[in-house]
Amino acid sequence: MLRGLARAAARRPGTLWTRGSGSGTGVLAHVVDLRSDTVTKPGPAMRRAMAEAVVGDDDYGEDPTVRELQEKAAKLLGVDRTLFVPTNTMANLISVMCHCQRRGSQILLGQECHLHVYEQGGVAQVHLLARSYGARVHLDGARLMNAAVALHVPPARIVEHCDSVSLCFSKGLGAPVGALVGGPKDFIEEAWRLRKALGGGMRQAGVLAATALVGLADFEEVLLTDHQNAQRFARGFQELESPICSVDLAAVETNMVMVRVDGPPPEELCRRLQAVSADEVAQTGHAVRVLVFPWTERSVRAVWHCDVSAHDTELVLKKWGFVLRQLGP
Amino acid sequence: MLRGLARAAARRPGTLWTRGSGSGTGVLAHVVDLRSDTVTKPGPAMRRAMAEAVVGDDDYGEDPTVRELQEKAAKLLGVDRTLFVPTNTMANLISVMCHCQRRGSQILLGQECHLHVYEQGGVAQVHLLARSYGARVHLDGARLMNAAVALHVPPARIVEHCDSVSLCFSKGLGAPVGALVGGPKDFIEEAWRLRKALGGGMRQAGVLAATALVGLADFEEVLLTDHQNAQRFARGFQELESPICSVDLAAVETNMVMVRVDGPPPEELCRRLQAVSADEVAQTGHAVRVLVFPWTERSVRAVWHCDVSAHDTELVLKKWGFVLRQLGP
Amino acid sequence: MLRGLARAAARRPGTLWTRGSGSGTGVLAHVVDLRSDTVTKPGPAMRRAMAEAVVGDDDYGEDPTVRELQEKAAKLLGVDRTLFVPTNTMANLISVMCHCQRRGSQILLGQECHLHVYEQGGVAQVHLLARSYGARVHLDGARLMNAAVALHVPPARIVEHCDSVSLCFSKGLGAPVGALVGGPKDFIEEAWRLRKALGGGMRQAGVLAATALVGLADFEEVLLTDHQNAQRFARGFQELESPICSVDLAAVETNMVMVRVDGPPPEELCRRLQAVSADEVAQTGHAVRVLVFPWTERSVRAVWHCDVSAHDTELVLKKWGFVLRQLGP
Amino acid sequence: MLRGLARAAARRPGTLWTRGSGSGTGVLAHVVDLRSDTVTKPGPAMRRAMAEAVVGDDDYGEDPTVRELQEKAAKLLGVDRTLFVPTNTMANLISVMCHCQRRGSQILLGQECHLHVYEQGGVAQVHLLARSYGARVHLDGARLMNAAVALHVPPARIVEHCDSVSLCFSKGLGAPVGALVGGPKDFIEEAWRLRKALGGGMRQAGVLAATALVGLADFEEVLLTDHQNAQRFARGFQELESPICSVDLAAVETNMVMVRVDGPPPEELCRRLQAVSADEVAQTGHAVRVLVFPWTERSVRAVWHCDVSAHDTELVLKKWGFVLRQLGP
Repeated sequence: MLRGLARAAARRPGTLWTRGSGSGTGVLAHVVDLRSDTVTKPGPAMRRAMAEAVVGDDDYGEDPTVRELQEKAAKLLGVDRTLFVPTNTMANLISVMCHCQRRGSQILLGQECHLHVYEQGGVAQVHLLARSYGARVHLDGARLMNAAVALHVPPARIVEHCDSVSLCFSKGLGAPVGALVGGPKDFIEEAWRLRKALGGGMRQAGVLAATALVGLADFEEVLLTDHQNAQRFARGFQELESPICSVDLAAVETNMVMVRVDGPPPEELCRRLQAVSADEVAQTGHAVRVLVFPWTERSVRAVWHCDVSAHDTELVLKKWGFVLRQLGP
Repeated sequence: MLRGLARAAARRPGTLWTRGSGSGTGVLAHVVDLRSDTVTKPGPAMRRAMAEAVVGDDDYGEDPTVRELQEKAAKLLGVDRTLFVPTNTMANLISVMCHCQRRGSQILLGQECHLHVYEQGGVAQVHLLARSYGARVHLDGARLMNAAVALHVPPARIVEHCDSVSLCFSKGLGAPVGALVGGPKDFIEEAWRLRKALGGGMRQAGVLAATALVGLADFEEVLLTDHQNAQRFARGFQELESPICSVDLAAVETNMVMVRVDGPPPEELCRRLQAVSADEVAQTGHAVRVLVFPWTERSVRAVWHCDVSAHDTELVLKKWGFVLRQLGP
Repeated sequence: MLRGLARAAARRPGTLWTRGSGSGTGVLAHVVDLRSDTVTKPGPAMRRAMAEAVVGDDDYGEDPTVRELQEKAAKLLGVDRTLFVPTNTMANLISVMCHCQRRGSQILLGQECHLHVYEQGGVAQVHLLARSYGARVHLDGARLMNAAVALHVPPARIVEHCDSVSLCFSKGLGAPVGALVGGPKDFIEEAWRLRKALGGGMRQAGVLAATALVGLADFEEVLLTDHQNAQRFARGFQELESPICSVDLAAVETNMVMVRVDGPPPEELCRRLQAVSADEVAQTGHAVRVLVFPWTERSVRAVWHCDVSAHDTELVLKKWGFVLRQLGP
Repeated sequence: MLRGLARAAARRPGTLWTRGSGSGTGVLAHVVDLRSDTVTKPGPAMRRAMAEAVVGDDDYGEDPTVRELQEKAAKLLGVDRTLFVPTNTMANLISVMCHCQRRGSQILLGQECHLHVYEQGGVAQVHLLARSYGARVHLDGARLMNAAVALHVPPARIVEHCDSVSLCFSKGLGAPVGALVGGPKDFIEEAWRLRKALGGGMRQAGVLAATALVGLADFEEVLLTDHQNAQRFARGFQELESPICSVDLAAVETNMVMVRVDGPPPEELCRRLQAVSADEVAQTGHAVRVLVFPWTERSVRAVWHCDVSAHDTELVLKKWGFVLRQLGP
């Protein structure tokens, strides 16, 4: 199995070498995937956790690993109960469907990396507002842990103003599959019924819960590193002093960097960052494919995660420098 | 049929006389239902509209009344397209399910009557925030028209910062059944598929759309009257100078009034407001059942709508006065 | 309002006169819509019922007309309870979602008009099979009443072998919108929760339930007439002795007729049946648009319903005769 | 990791030793879980497959293991395409929601182990019936592979009469989590959208798909063994010649055995089969907990799967013998 793990590890995007297609030179390219933190692949610890997980039929409530995760997460989030589900989308969908069965309206707090949503003047304010009108607040915790790490507060501190919360394990926490929804006991009982009706009631889900537990074990350290790499990129980007692209360093709070693009369409930039050529090798000594998505009409989004190292980040900066020089002043 | 309409009208809650059960005196009670604006019953104009509606099979896109409503509403809300659905809950559910299929996260802006959510510093601010991070904003328009009337702005002005919107016809607008979801063309195409999959694709829905058109025809006037009655109640309530209950007049912006309760549990107040007795008749000259819900642990919510007149509002104040005197200082 | 009803009646498809577009002659065409029994438009009795319906907020269980319908339907179907929903699709969806929460598998008995599904050797056999293996049988009652009328049995007799059932009001029963799901008490309690979560909980649904009650009041008579008209067409069709198209008279059990097509593609036939021309008027004395759908690669389906009279059926036969003569031997 | 695998293997139910609670004697009991084939725990090969799986972001269609599974399964089932989903329930739900968007009605063929549903006179007959009326047939393939093995036909032979099919990997095939839905290209495209909307779009689902591939690799052999063990039990049961319980040997076609119970309530039998006592050890030399569910009011269901060996089956028979002797003639 060790050979298998080595093979799998060798395929992590940060270290993947592929034939270059951009120029036909056949050069081997190093790929750095910054499209999203959903692309993270489970590392050796998670793979070992899956292989060793003690499991049971969770539909009968008999999977000890799922139960361990649900209990740990409930404490971490400061809620009565949590329920493991296949995706964060289902966690949010179940919450919306649960809340609509109750009196009053609801507020679903979506989020990307922006901390203002979570800070005292954010969630708490929505909560003062919502509570006085009997509305329910659901917190879409797709990247809740990133926010907690960036704000230096326990996650429960962010969640305390909300009626329910989701938590995604397959983004920054690096698990392959899984999320959960948390809230009061009767809310989770209804969520359990809806999970079943929607087809989210998995059997030996402990193999997935085991990876989530690995993700929770050291999330502060891992996410902090991601945030630092994002910062490293943003600072390095400013030194490129490009007239075409810019980064607002103050806005880099977690693992995401928005690169503002003035000039070529974002799609064009994304294409050039992904292509490799003999010129690139000659000028930079490297052949690097950087994968990013155009985000708005004037911006490109880059997302750091556990499969992108500080070294990868340096290579990404080199590639941006090369592409920006190509585009010229 | 006119006799039928008269019979139906005679059963409107604001004019319904029922046997009093509170004291066993057999007194006839006048019922004023302030539990929610969802309780409105279709009036003669809406009933006539249903009876005369030109309809077709909307599943084939052939119902002219549904099409008329969808087009009028699209203009009113300033969106590309709208789609008629059975309930506001389905409108919101479809929106959440549509948005989750796209890149980025989402913010579902729920609402009760609080205008801050809609004002420049509310929706627009969420939009400045959301847009820069590629998030989608869905506006739960359960009471959107009340907000527009209170803010003296066209509804489209509130919606313009959002990616999608719902609009409920069976609250303040008074229709018996129906809502719609609005947004860009491709969003509505996907919404159409989801409506079908969720079982919301009704056949001759024109009979319902016809009532929604009636509701839209004079919504400013109707909702303004509701707001004025809510104000009338709030001002009258202050004159009661109760040490137990109070109303924050500044917070009465639309058709809802929150009565803060310091002392008896809200449930106890609701029970007393609903009961009638010989004492009440002797002291006030009336027997009035006021239906309200406890809202939070320290408040009761009262909601005005087209089935509650200015006269009903005076009777409600009288009943509150009687109940508060009973509870004593 | 009477004028309104007259206007609405004048727009029933069976009597609708439209400008002929097939030949540019400007001839007025009589339209007979046999595409589906979903196209039925509410007649005067249903429109009056909507206009006079006593309603309440069904979300609070306070709509007396919905309650009356649910109780009548429960007796008719021989089940504990029923629940009113917007569409038959939602009735089926809720049933599938309810059953999947229980032990054992399920069988969803879909149906078109084929009686074998319902007869002793059909439903009952599935039930002997299903019961011994703990499986649940849900009966999709889209056209349950047609089957009961054709089999000369009470609907409850067909349903008795099933664990749950749906019933559609907007097909042969002629209501504009509505269906229901029926089953044991605990099943309906779960169905109630799912209806709410899926956005099917309508407020003053009594305006729709009132039309369903009209549909139930005389369904035997109405559906029997539909079946007789379908028979009338099938017999008349055989007399056309076409070498291209044929009808299996023995297979015409309810309100549907499958016309087998050997030669031209079914789409071509449908186009010709829908077009009108000066030739048609000259030869037949009529200009009739017959709307039907291609059903399989070798067949066209025609469905009778309350908006198609015996006279309409004669005109349809004349039009088929004209088209088949055109296509020649 | 090997030590971990050994630990995990040691926890397989078939070899699990627990403290006896039935009599307080503290005897170690051997547990045989026959409640369902959903309780199977992933064995060493599946755990290795998870640990070594090459994965990608399946939401971007980049997970090679999921793609491999989907392609292999499509060939095996004889359908255009398949789509991996978290559960068989979601596979069925998506199918029902897809079909309801199309013309015509549908038949959902549920199943337990009964082969008649699948045989020439079953699926094929439903298909002759359904096709002529334009209805769609969806096959709930929860235990499709058991049927194929028992009938000695390739799975595609059973599926060929259906419009869509589901396949569960977490029952007899032994995978911890996962199922798929199969059908024509456009059906699967719509299924992909619904999977996303319902929250079934998992990211690095390859870790689960890898276990499904292991399950498919040797399913004939594994399921045949299960069927033989079920037969072994049924034959042995007949030799017990109990006046209280009986098994119809001819009805044991796959991995399920229904034990008919005449006398004590099935719950009482289940309790006694699960308890251990000093008497049992004295009489049989073993302490065995047999887990089964009451199935109907007069029967108990026992299900064989890969975690129950021939030796386990012998122990189960001994335990039944002991319990039946206890209950006396």
